[in-house]
Parts: sequence; C-alpha cells; structure tokens
Amino acid sequence: MTEELLDSDCEDTIRLSVSEAQALGEGALRNLGLPSDEAAIVATHLVDASMWGYEFAGLPRILVIAERPELRRPRTPISIVRETPVSALLDGGNHLGYVAVARGVDVAIEKARKTGVAVIGVRNCWFTGRGAYYLEILARAGLAAIYTASSTPTVVPLGASRKALGTNPLAIGVPGKVNPFIFDMGTSLVMTGEVMMKAFLGEAFPEVVGINRDGLPTRVASELVDGGVFPFGGHKGYGLSLAIQALGLLAGARMRNGDVSDFAHLFIAFDPELLMPAEQFTSELEELLTGIKALPKQPGVSEIRIPSERGFREREIRRTQGIVVKKPVVERLRQMA
Amino acid sequence: MTEELLDSDCEDTIRLSVSEAQALGEGALRNLGLPSDEAAIVATHLVDASMWGYEFAGLPRILVIAERPELRRPRTPISIVRETPVSALLDGGNHLGYVAVARGVDVAIEKARKTGVAVIGVRNCWFTGRGAYYLEILARAGLAAIYTASSTPTVVPLGASRKALGTNPLAIGVPGKVNPFIFDMGTSLVMTGEVMMKAFLGEAFPEVVGINRDGLPTRVASELVDGGVFPFGGHKGYGLSLAIQALGLLAGARMRNGDVSDFAHLFIAFDPELLMPAEQFTSELEELLTGIKALPKQPGVSEIRIPSERGFREREIRRTQGIVVKKPVVERLRQMA
Repeated sequence: MTEELLDSDCEDTIRLSVSEAQALGEGALRNLGLPSDEAAIVATHLVDASMWGYEFAGLPRILVIAERPELRRPRTPISIVRETPVSALLDGGNHLGYVAVARGVDVAIEKARKTGVAVIGVRNCWFTGRGAYYLEILARAGLAAIYTASSTPTVVPLGASRKALGTNPLAIGVPGKVNPFIFDMGTSLVMTGEVMMKAFLGEAFPEVVGINRDGLPTRVASELVDGGVFPFGGHKGYGLSLAIQALGLLAGARMRNGDVSDFAHLFIAFDPELLMPAEQFTSELEELLTGIKALPKQPGVSEIRIPSERGFREREIRRTQGIVVKKPVVERLRQMA
Repeated sequence: MTEELLDSDCEDTIRLSVSEAQALGEGALRNLGLPSDEAAIVATHLVDASMWGYEFAGLPRILVIAERPELRRPRTPISIVRETPVSALLDGGNHLGYVAVARGVDVAIEKARKTGVAVIGVRNCWFTGRGAYYLEILARAGLAAIYTASSTPTVVPLGASRKALGTNPLAIGVPGKVNPFIFDMGTSLVMTGEVMMKAFLGEAFPEVVGINRDGLPTRVASELVDGGVFPFGGHKGYGLSLAIQALGLLAGARMRNGDVSDFAHLFIAFDPELLMPAEQFTSELEELLTGIKALPKQPGVSEIRIPSERGFREREIRRTQGIVVKKPVVERLRQMA
C-alpha cells in the first residue's frame, strides 16, 4: 500500500490494528455480560464503523452501552413473534440491536430468496449502529433494501422546546458491480454518538445544534444530552424523522416500555429481479454513478462524491493502517476488558 | 363554515369552485389530446393538489404539460411487463404519470391484499404529481407505503456545475384513525413546479437556489430552468436524491430514452397487519401525533405542525371556498379548453 496515512498519530490517540480493535471490543463487551458470539457480532459492527471513519459509532460506543440501564435488565432469546411468507416481526428480547437486527437481516435474506421481498420489523432491542452495515449484508446477498429505525427521544420537533423524536436514520442500499451503493443518514442535525462522545470529553459543537433542558439554544454537548438536538434540513428533516417514528410503531416501538418514541427497526428488502435483470441494473447503476463523477465541477471542488464510496475506500486502507482511537477511550476499554 | 378565507382575492387572481376548476382542467387536457377518462384522472389529481394549497402542482401544471415534447409522441396502452405475486413493473406507454402511477396503485392494492406486500415499478411515463396523492389512496385502502420517483435532470449534485438528478421525491404514508399520516417531500431545494411557474411569470426567488447554464449561482427562475437547482439539506439531500435516482433505475428509468436520469416510480405498499393489528397501529400513531402536538412550544410558535395535517384541513375548507389561480393561467387554460 502506498496510500497516504489517513490519520496522524497524536499524544491523545492510540493506533490499533483491526484485530487489536476487534479483540479489545470483544473483551470489553464480554466483560459487560455478553456471550462470546454476541460480543463478536457487536465488536465486528463497531470496528467496521471505525474502519469507515465513523469514529463515534465505533469502539467508543461501548462506553455508552456500559452506562445504559437496559444492559442490567434480563434478556430473553431473540424470536420471531409474527410471520408470513413475506414478513417477520422479531422480538429482540432486550438484546443489543446490533445482534437482533443482524438476526432480522438473516430472516430477510431467507424470505426474499423465496418470495422476492421481505418486510421485517425488529422490536425490543436497543442500539443498532449503522443502517449501512445491514444494507451491505443485504446488498451482497443480492437484495435492494430500504431501512429505517426509530429510537428514544433525542431530537426536538420543529417549534417544540422538548425532545420527542429519535435520530431516526433512513438508509437505502442496492447491489453494485463491485461494491453496493449505500446511502445512510440520520435525520438529526448531529449524530447521537458524536453528542455522547463530546459530552464524555467535555466538548462543544462549533454552532448551536439543539437546546438545553430549559429549551434554550446550546452548542454544549452535555447540555444537548439533557435538552435535545434539532432535525437536519428544517421542516423536511423534521417530517421525515416523524414519518420514521411512525414506521417504528409498526415494528413495535411502543412494546418495549409503553412509550411511542422508542427503538424499533423496519426494513424492506427485495430482489431487483422482481423488476429487471440484476446484471442490467448494476450496469445501469454504474453508468449513473460514473456520469455523476464525471460532471463538470464547481471551482475549488476536487471530486464529486458518491455516498459510501469514501467509506469503502477508507475501509480497505484501514485493513493495513488500522484505526485511531482517543486514548481515554482505549484506556477505559482496557480497564473493562 | 365559519372558517376564515384562505386566500384574498386580488386583481391578478381568479377564484374557481372545485367543480369549475375540475371542468376547466378536464377541458384543457382533452384539448391536448387526452381521452375523457384520462383527462378526468389528471384533472382530479391537479385540483386536489390545488386544494391542498400546492398552487404550482395544480392547474398551472397543464401549461407545462402542453409544452412537453412527450405529449406529441405516440402512446401505447399501459401494461404490466413483469410480474410476480408480490410485484409488478408497469410500462406507462408514454402516458402521463398521473394516469400510469394511478394504475400502478390499483395493482399494488390488489397484490398487497393477497400477499401482504407489493413492490411496484412504473416506467415510461412523465409527470406524476404528488406522491402524497397516491399514498392517500393506498392508506385509505389500509396500506402503509414508501414511494420514490426519479425524474429528468433539474438538480445539481453537490460540487457539480451541471444538473444530473431529478427532483426525486420521497413519500411515506400510513393509515390513520381519521386521515392517514402522509409525509411527502422533494429532495430539491425548490419545487420544479414553482420554478416553471415563476419562469412563466418572469419571477425570481428571494435567494440563490441553483445555477444558470454557465454553472454560476442564480435566483432567476428562467435561468434555473437552463441551469439547475440545488438539493435540499446539503450532502444528506444530495445523497438521498442520488439514492432515489438509483431506485428509479430499478423501475426502468433508463428504458424511456436510454438515459439513466429519467422518470420512473418505485413504491412498496404493505399491510400493517403483517406486523401488528391495524387498529393497534392507528391508536399508537394517534398517541404519537397527539404527543407531538402537545409538546411545550418555542416562544412565538403558535402550533407544532404535523405533516399532511394542514393539507387535509385546507382541502376541507376549499370544498366551499374553492381555489384561487393566477389570472394569466386561467385565461390560458380557457383558451385551451
């Protein structure tokens, strides 16, 4: 590899190889009471997030998991509680969402291979990580998918002075010639992982991104935890967030704690062959993306970006360069592991 | 009705009753060569858009339809060209999308009633109006749905100096207790209908919303037609627009003119009963929406808004108050009809 180094090494960071990061994550998660196979599933997801460059969705997340009250509540086996040939509702049994949604993805692949489509709900679990992670698994199994997730209140509806919506991500993925095309976004102005990490480190955002507990504008991360963050994109982002919260109800959000604003995951996966030959689709997709990349650029723009392109590239580089994690995070995880 | 008047009557506007508007629209559309039944379908959609308060998606659209080259190309019957029990791809036969997608909605309802879910693509048609219109039909038939549409280039990818993406709307709808909950947004910063209407009237936007044919920023509507408009919400809106363009390929966008950026419609409708009893869902949805409405408000905010709520209210009022259309539009339509 002659790639330039993605991160410089600083006094307050530690560089870990992918296998070191995986081992550190698995150890810390086992210490939190997860069985080995589940610790491996969660750590793989978190390390993948770090490799994509999503620092706050990576290993630091374990520190947040450790503080969640759900961790100390009993778990029951993940099970399918409602099912048809084209659908399944899974009860996550208070497991981590990383594990429960991964199970839902397996069920989706199995069903969509038989019927062409699967509508999957996953309820009664918490913290799911990146929708893109699941969409990549689905896309590499040949499936297109739309994924939404509702979560507990962190986002403030437009005009309100109290949080009531989750960060409610929406993701869309389709198979590609080499890598899938995956678009994944939260509907909050800033990521919860980033808010929590900044709160842990005592930091603030450069601009106002939400409100404090009194409903007043703030950029201080710890105050945002008590108050809430704004949706992205004004009324469109707010409306989309609310629509995703509504879809979360369908997946059983209210079942967890009797609250309509809670974690639940709804995704629909389908075989592109329902509509056209899969190879024709991936060729046309490549034509679309190549055309976008080749457009004339605005002055000062070096490259027109395609969602997920940078992430796939960065992940390959990190297989040799490893990931860089803030020292206090690594130290805390080592104490845990 | 003791409702306040929604619009004041001005020198340059004409007030039409709903039936007058419908008759005017149908007449103009028949004059453009549409058979009576299709003219009725399109006019009903356009008048409904006007009743929701979407001036530019209403009757003025007929003036744009009249100028489109597709109108003068031959039409073939709308037909299903690929089908499974859970899916259908419709060829719109160069018909107006208002007609072709309405047919796709009928097929979706039929299939979802049998299997629980329908993945529908509609290709080879143009101009479809509001996704919310179709979602209301689906929701009143008891179905939840996610709707996307790709279209011909009007939107400029982030960093590019040429348009390459459609306005690519995304809409999500679910059944409700009285009215459905419907969220519908374009992924462009401003609506194409508004750009075209302002260009027709020689107007400009208050702020820069796109580029001219040379790639330079502009707020003049006629220049935006030649250049392009920006996506909403920065990189998230751009990514979402591109993802919807990719889904459009699945629905056969490229088939129309060999161009990867063209009209196509992909929607997935499913029975909420796949995941939970429908009545339980509508109750929980009401609880969610009531809770949002009842949140403490920011100073100066009179009401926390819920998507589609204002539209349903306005439509009821307009059944008696009618709609107000710019005089040049009405005059042109009367000449046509």
